[in-house]
Amino acid sequence: MAKIGIDIMGGDNAPLAVIEGILYALMEIKDLHIVATYYKNVDINEIIKRIFSLSAKKSKIRNFIKNNLWRDRIEFIPCESYISMKDRPSGFLKNKNNTLKTIFDLLKDNVIHGVVYAGNTGAFLEGSVLVVGRMENVKRPALLTILPFGNPPVFLLDSGANPECKPEYMLQFAIMASTYYKVVLSKIPTVGILNIGNEEIKGNNLVKETHVLIKSYMDRNSKLFNYSGFIEPYDVVNSKINIVLTDGFSGNIMLKSFEALSEYVMDMMKREFSKGIINKALGLILRSNFRKLKNFFDYSEYGGAIMLGLKGICIKTHGRANYKAIKNSILFTYRLIKNDMINRIEKEIKSMEVWIT
Amino acid sequence: MAKIGIDIMGGDNAPLAVIEGILYALMEIKDLHIVATYYKNVDINEIIKRIFSLSAKKSKIRNFIKNNLWRDRIEFIPCESYISMKDRPSGFLKNKNNTLKTIFDLLKDNVIHGVVYAGNTGAFLEGSVLVVGRMENVKRPALLTILPFGNPPVFLLDSGANPECKPEYMLQFAIMASTYYKVVLSKIPTVGILNIGNEEIKGNNLVKETHVLIKSYMDRNSKLFNYSGFIEPYDVVNSKINIVLTDGFSGNIMLKSFEALSEYVMDMMKREFSKGIINKALGLILRSNFRKLKNFFDYSEYGGAIMLGLKGICIKTHGRANYKAIKNSILFTYRLIKNDMINRIEKEIKSMEVWIT
Repeated sequence: MAKIGIDIMGGDNAPLAVIEGILYALMEIKDLHIVATYYKNVDINEIIKRIFSLSAKKSKIRNFIKNNLWRDRIEFIPCESYISMKDRPSGFLKNKNNTLKTIFDLLKDNVIHGVVYAGNTGAFLEGSVLVVGRMENVKRPALLTILPFGNPPVFLLDSGANPECKPEYMLQFAIMASTYYKVVLSKIPTVGILNIGNEEIKGNNLVKETHVLIKSYMDRNSKLFNYSGFIEPYDVVNSKINIVLTDGFSGNIMLKSFEALSEYVMDMMKREFSKGIINKALGLILRSNFRKLKNFFDYSEYGGAIMLGLKGICIKTHGRANYKAIKNSILFTYRLIKNDMINRIEKEIKSMEVWIT
Repeated sequence: MAKIGIDIMGGDNAPLAVIEGILYALMEIKDLHIVATYYKNVDINEIIKRIFSLSAKKSKIRNFIKNNLWRDRIEFIPCESYISMKDRPSGFLKNKNNTLKTIFDLLKDNVIHGVVYAGNTGAFLEGSVLVVGRMENVKRPALLTILPFGNPPVFLLDSGANPECKPEYMLQFAIMASTYYKVVLSKIPTVGILNIGNEEIKGNNLVKETHVLIKSYMDRNSKLFNYSGFIEPYDVVNSKINIVLTDGFSGNIMLKSFEALSEYVMDMMKREFSKGIINKALGLILRSNFRKLKNFFDYSEYGGAIMLGLKGICIKTHGRANYKAIKNSILFTYRLIKNDMINRIEKEIKSMEVWIT
């Protein structure tokens, strides 16, 4: 049995969409158990009643709710406080009876096997690293984000957890991401280092030294991933590689540049299509394309961003996640648990440590 | 009189578009003189004849060519070699009689007052820094690029010349860019440091230390620019600031991410509009919007990218520049010369040096 913990207060559509996502996930997988923390003033039964009344008649979910098939498969834990999307994350860990902190504590104590969270990203980063803690031998946990270019999409790490990196961290990132990639897609990935040019002479000291370190790693152990050297943002959007290896500063700048420009282009198009009646009509026809662009980075198929290098599985779903995205993230986390992801990463990191020290 | 040097072999449309741009610039400004280097096998007279025959009858340019009004205002210098767009820049400086090297030599020797170049960016960066040389007290010259967000657009530096930076370089970048901004737009700019969050605790060591240094600079001399602290890519596309201050690694990653994503979105739309006859028809109607997106970064109004911190004015125009863009870059360079840009930057840097040492 797999046990997944969820702070149902996290996310723009919380707590309703989160509970709904949980119910759908439980319907789909038999040996799944959920531990859900909530703010004490929230009336859980009332929310489940609302989900029931909002659902189509004769739907599976109505039946599932009515027959109390979920009762002994979700454990609800009331807490004294929670962190909202707008709250500053710093300091929330001091809050003893916090919904998110409690979930991370449960993961640390092995009561649950994974965490799914749709709320405050800063709190997620801080809490997962400080409470759950690093895997043995891992120097720095890193945040892996999915970029929706190509199929399968491109994995980016570190996308923001470590603004200051060293070559050894970067090699560990590559090892962790490649193991993760193999667990998820059963394929050996190609890894490229994000740089400002493809030539060996290009870049800052960090990428140059990382390049040398990875080449010597490849000479000894070339089975975990293929290394394609330096890549540029252009290679990322054309999915020339499977994994973009970068420090958390550059990675976050690239990610946010993509996001900002896609919003900018959408606004530009919108303005264009509000001029005159013909353009307005065109705009209506093209609505679905705009939506595609708007939702460009709301990627839920791969469960969301994941912190790699921790003692447990910590998945961060998009704040805008609806119940389907929540359900997908839970199913995805379930698969990672079943595939023994944590132990597999631990093993690979250990074998690197033997060589590097 | 202002003397501007141009390697007419540089650019996708060289040498024809470059010579045409020169002729138009000469027509427009009376006290302008051009020094143009070319590869010895190129037949200049033949090109000018072609420009004549391609131009509309009774056009000003025909008259200008026919009456030989340009003859004593352009000096053509034949050279033994030139560098193409595809050539690797490294090593071209060893080539004694190279079109680009010769132009930079002329600038160094004060024979000309500025350089405009549409060719190989790598060669431009290398040549301008190594041949023309740094301005006194300038630690690192930086490449300033125009981002087409807002009006006036956003200035980005360093956009790629210095992948490894120190806080002192960054402060100098801010000083140089602000002086440049004031020369070009007669306004005091707002400067923000590119970071992965707006809060003071965010970022890598470089941005944190630069933030402290700039704050203490502002305390002593707050007239050159306004400082708005940390900014993110989202603030850049919304032109919240006038100047984005960043190291050449992050700056180049952001610039290339914008470029890559705008191409990606355009391709996505194109694919969408090749499906079925209705979509195809829509695509035709929307062609101008696509073109807008495609030319997003072909910005010529502000002359192109400029290397700041050199002993002379070095402007890099887009490789795809047509004759109009070339003309604009020349007129723009002319204005910088007339406004004594180099001396004004030198003065500001000097006054900073007095304080910092």
